[in-house]
This record gives sequence, structure tokens and C-alpha cells, in this order.
Amino acid sequence: MHFSIPPTIPLPALQARIDGKTKPPGSLGRLERLALQIGQLQQSLAPTLGQPHLLVFAGDHGAARAGVSAYPQEVTWQMVENFLAGGAAINVFARQNGLQLQIIDAGVAHHFGSRKGLVDAKIAFATHNFIEQAAMSVDDCQAAMARGATIARQLADAGCRVIGFGEMGIGNSAAAALLTHQLTGTPLPACVGRGTGLDDAGLARKQALLARAAERAALAPDAPALRVLAEFGGFEIAMMAGAMLAAAERRMLLLIDGFIVTSALLVAAAIAPAIGDYCVFCHRSAEPGHQAQLRALHAEPLLDLELRLGEGSGAALAWPLVRSAVAFLNEMASFESAGVSEQV
Amino acid sequence: MHFSIPPTIPLPALQARIDGKTKPPGSLGRLERLALQIGQLQQSLAPTLGQPHLLVFAGDHGAARAGVSAYPQEVTWQMVENFLAGGAAINVFARQNGLQLQIIDAGVAHHFGSRKGLVDAKIAFATHNFIEQAAMSVDDCQAAMARGATIARQLADAGCRVIGFGEMGIGNSAAAALLTHQLTGTPLPACVGRGTGLDDAGLARKQALLARAAERAALAPDAPALRVLAEFGGFEIAMMAGAMLAAAERRMLLLIDGFIVTSALLVAAAIAPAIGDYCVFCHRSAEPGHQAQLRALHAEPLLDLELRLGEGSGAALAWPLVRSAVAFLNEMASFESAGVSEQV
Repeated sequence: MHFSIPPTIPLPALQARIDGKTKPPGSLGRLERLALQIGQLQQSLAPTLGQPHLLVFAGDHGAARAGVSAYPQEVTWQMVENFLAGGAAINVFARQNGLQLQIIDAGVAHHFGSRKGLVDAKIAFATHNFIEQAAMSVDDCQAAMARGATIARQLADAGCRVIGFGEMGIGNSAAAALLTHQLTGTPLPACVGRGTGLDDAGLARKQALLARAAERAALAPDAPALRVLAEFGGFEIAMMAGAMLAAAERRMLLLIDGFIVTSALLVAAAIAPAIGDYCVFCHRSAEPGHQAQLRALHAEPLLDLELRLGEGSGAALAWPLVRSAVAFLNEMASFESAGVSEQV
Repeated sequence: MHFSIPPTIPLPALQARIDGKTKPPGSLGRLERLALQIGQLQQSLAPTLGQPHLLVFAGDHGAARAGVSAYPQEVTWQMVENFLAGGAAINVFARQNGLQLQIIDAGVAHHFGSRKGLVDAKIAFATHNFIEQAAMSVDDCQAAMARGATIARQLADAGCRVIGFGEMGIGNSAAAALLTHQLTGTPLPACVGRGTGLDDAGLARKQALLARAAERAALAPDAPALRVLAEFGGFEIAMMAGAMLAAAERRMLLLIDGFIVTSALLVAAAIAPAIGDYCVFCHRSAEPGHQAQLRALHAEPLLDLELRLGEGSGAALAWPLVRSAVAFLNEMASFESAGVSEQV
């Protein structure tokens, strides 16, 4: 699989346009840098944010049955049903903020049949238990990435310029912890958190199980990202990684949610480091491993609200700020046009 | 002037409603606490955010002509014209996020005449120069607060449940610095910042001028807030303080912007400490004195985007998060209604 992500080129006229707006220079802080980033990645002085989508990739994890989560595996499909019925947090936030929501079955252990709002991209009914064997074959891993890439390209063809990433999968904070450990070199214990809400005993059990998984896989520190992904990843994580790479290739803006989504980005960034220029890091998760990911990616998120829900909720909540960055660039008057005096 | 702000009473059923939503308990972090706060202040399990307004209070400062700002005083009225024409940052953000914008002339040194979108509440054409004398008489100060209170009550009568506060006034970061110094006990230098963008020499000049103003006024550390306000305040700051007190009295939600708006809140909180329960602190300003204010008020803002624009821009940018807090409470399914399994 090859992805060719175009480098973003500085646009001096864009900074001049930002500085000419009726505000003290730099006074919109991070929004100014965001406007610059988006204009640059679109190579435009008047960027657009057409047809923004939020994609929730769902998949099940063999390891969930080994006790790495506070919730039973069935919650994955039950929550997919909740998404389809419009009752989950991501439904509320996407609706409020004008993001078109699409749910993608990447590998849920459930027969949904054909359903409105659900994209059937199922690779299998859950991954294998990574404590005992590789979570998926390299072939399945590549298939998941390729389906993700296809989904992103279809959206690009339809005029979509922004993809927000979200996920659902009981046990996937365990998979993300292993990916983060292996891809950033952070000691495993610092990558493992309470996920959806493990108590102290549950956290200790999760730590022990993940240490066994890492020991079993015995990957070299420089193991290729694809191999790491196949060992530990979920189908939803692999599919996100493929979608991210294809989206950046098409110069789309990527809204990166929290811990699980960023684990997919770690894989994508290992394959094509230029992807970072296309990402907005939407929030700082309360899940401790997210800090290691952000450090590795030199990322500073927009929001810090102690969120740890997943589903893309942080991406949907940060989206109005991204819109504001583009709106001030496109809609504000300049000192000249408004007849306002500049600094003395 | 007396304001009777009702205490907010805990609603145990509200916390239960939040915990019953289809998400791990606590996983929406600060949004959950926000939902709890808003439900409690409205004493409702299903709070509403009817007819949210953003009010921009504008006023001129005698001290501006003494050189405390990077911009000439004329920029105050020029920016009011920009607001009325729809070209400023606050116009863009209020429009995007569904806040009704109202501009209030509290004391701008300019004849606007009767203009659509502008409320004429002018007390005088700028305050006196507080380096040489009190900025305003106690009578004018009370008149400004009373007009602010009337504006808030009229909005409450019309069904408005939320007021966002913004301001415009060249020189008002100097006034806010003096208020913050006096009302929080923070040493003056830590309250003085670059405002709209002073260079090092300009900042040193502002520091020296404000030290002279503080020395001239020679207020006791426990001087009454109204006296402090009259010495240093702008008419826009006094009018905001009055509007805040009346709004909290009517159980409205107050969206608190940055450094200048929070200086008005310091006055209001000194008069009626219970007002804190009605406030959402929208962002952490890049202006250094804001940190002292937030500490004094035990406040933790929602956003930290290095903004230092004023106009209420931080309040308008945080508003979608407040809406999200109420939306998840009112629109999300519960575990029971969605048939989702709870924690094992």
C-alpha cells in the first residue's frame, strides 16, 4: 500500500491576510495558526470546509473476552444500534455541530443486516485475542486499511473536505495501549489506563494481560507499523489508519479525536510522516496514554475537557472552533475595508 | 443598589439523569459538570438555553489619551462601526454559533445617532483620566450599573436565559489591571499586560502610569468595590457589572469572556459572591492579569486558545460547548431506553 501525501507549502499571502483582519495581530491565538494550517493544506487564501463528515469505525476485540474492559463485548453492537437510533453522545454532538455522521462496521461481532446509516465494511466478527496470537493476519490488516482508504476517497470524490474520526469497540483502549507502547517506545504501564472505567483491580488485571501480550508478540523496537498493527490492532483502528492516509493524500483535513483514534494516527504517521500537517488534534483525553501519543506527534490539542468517551466526541466538540478559524479568515473585515486605524 | 441572587440547590435527580446516559460515568468530563451546574441554576432536570445573547459593552477611557494602549482612542468608535457593519470577529463568531449580538454604547467618545443594533446607554463621552482623578463619580458609576441591570432584566423578561459578555474600549485593559490589583490583592505589575499589543517600551510606560494611578487613588485594601469601580472603571465595565448582577438574580447563565469582562465580574462578586454559581468561565486569556482573576474566583475556564482579542470572542467560541452540555443531557438515550448493558 502506497500513499503519497503532498507536502504543505507556506503561503506568505495567507499570513498577510490574517494580519490584515480588524484585530490586534496574533490576538486570535491558536485560531490564527489553525486558519494558516487549513489555508496551507488547501493551498488557498479562502479555504472551504465542504461537507464535513464524522466517521465512527466500530470493531470488536478478541481480548475483550479476556477481561480488559469494564464493559461486556456486547456493548459494541448495542452502541452501534444506539448510534443508528440517534441516541448516543456522538449523535447529539454531530447533529448540533453540523457534521454528517456515518457508522462503519469494520468488524463487530454481530449481524446487523443492511441498515440505513451503517456502512458494512466488516473484515471479520472480531479480531483474535492478542494475548494469545496476532490480532489479525497481515492480509486482513491490509484489507481493513484498503477499505478505509476507499471510504475516504469516495467522500473526497463527493466533495467532502473534512473527516472527523471516531470509534467504538469494547477493549480497544487495550489495543491502543499496545500500539502506543510499541510505536512510541513509551513503557507499557504509562500507556495503559482505565478505559471506560476500570477500578483499581481491573486496571491491574489489564496491565498484567497487556504485559503478557507484549511479551508474546516480542516485537523488535523498530518493527514495521503494519506488523505492529496486525499484532495488536483492531479492525476499526486499521480501517481508520487507511482512511487517514487516503484523506491526507486528497488534502482533506483530519479531525483527530482521543486515545484510540490517535493510535491509528501513530500507524499512519509511521507510514507517511507528512500526514501530521493535515491533522487537527481536537482534545486532550483523560486516558493517560494519550499524553505519550501527543508528545510523540508534537501535538497540542485544542480542547482539554477531561473527556474519555471516544466515539469521536472530542472531534465533534472541537469542530465549531475549526469552523471559526476558517470563518474569521473568510468573513472578517480588514483594517482597510472597515476604516479602522492600525497600531500607533 | 441591592441584588438578591438565589442560592443554587443540589438536585440529586440531575446527577442520576447524567449518570444514566449511554456513556461510561463521568466520561464527558467537564461537560458533565457544566450540565449539572446549568440544571441546578435553573432548578431543572431539562434546562433550556432560550434566546442566548451576546452583549458587547463599549466605552472610552480618559487614560487612553495618556498612552496606555497600542491603539488610538478613535479605534473604539471605529470598531463599534465595524460591529454594526458585521465585520468584526465577534460578528463572525456570534453569527456562526447562534448568539444574538447587541452592541451597547456605555460611554464611547463619539456621536453615533440612532442606529440599528446599537443600544444607546451612554453615561458620558469617556471617563476621566484615572491617572489624575477618579474615572467617574459614584453617581455615574451607579447609573452605569443600573442601566446594565435594566438591559439584563429586559432580556430576561423577553425569555433570554443566557447572556454572554463582551467589551470594546481602547485603554480598558489598563482599567481592568487596576481593578484586579485592588480587588484581588495581586501586586500591580502582575496585573498589567500588553493589552492589544504594546511593545516592551509601551508596557513599561503602562506599568509606570498605572502605578501612578494606584498611588493617586491610595485606596485601602478593603475599599468597597463600588468605590474601586468609580476610581478606575470604565463605563462599559460598570455597566457589565450591573448587568451580571441582575442576570444572576434572574437565574440566567453568564458567559464570562476574558480579562476585561472578568474585572467586571470581580466587582459583581464582591457585591454578591453567590454570582459565581451562575458563571461559565469561557477561556483563559493570554493577558497575564487574567490568571490572578481566575485564581481569586476559583475558576477553571473551558478554553485555552491564547486569545487576547476581547469583544466577547472567547465567550462566543465557548458557547457551542455549553450548548453541547445541555444537549447531551436533554437528547442522549439512557442505558435503559437504548437497551445497552451497563458496567460489569
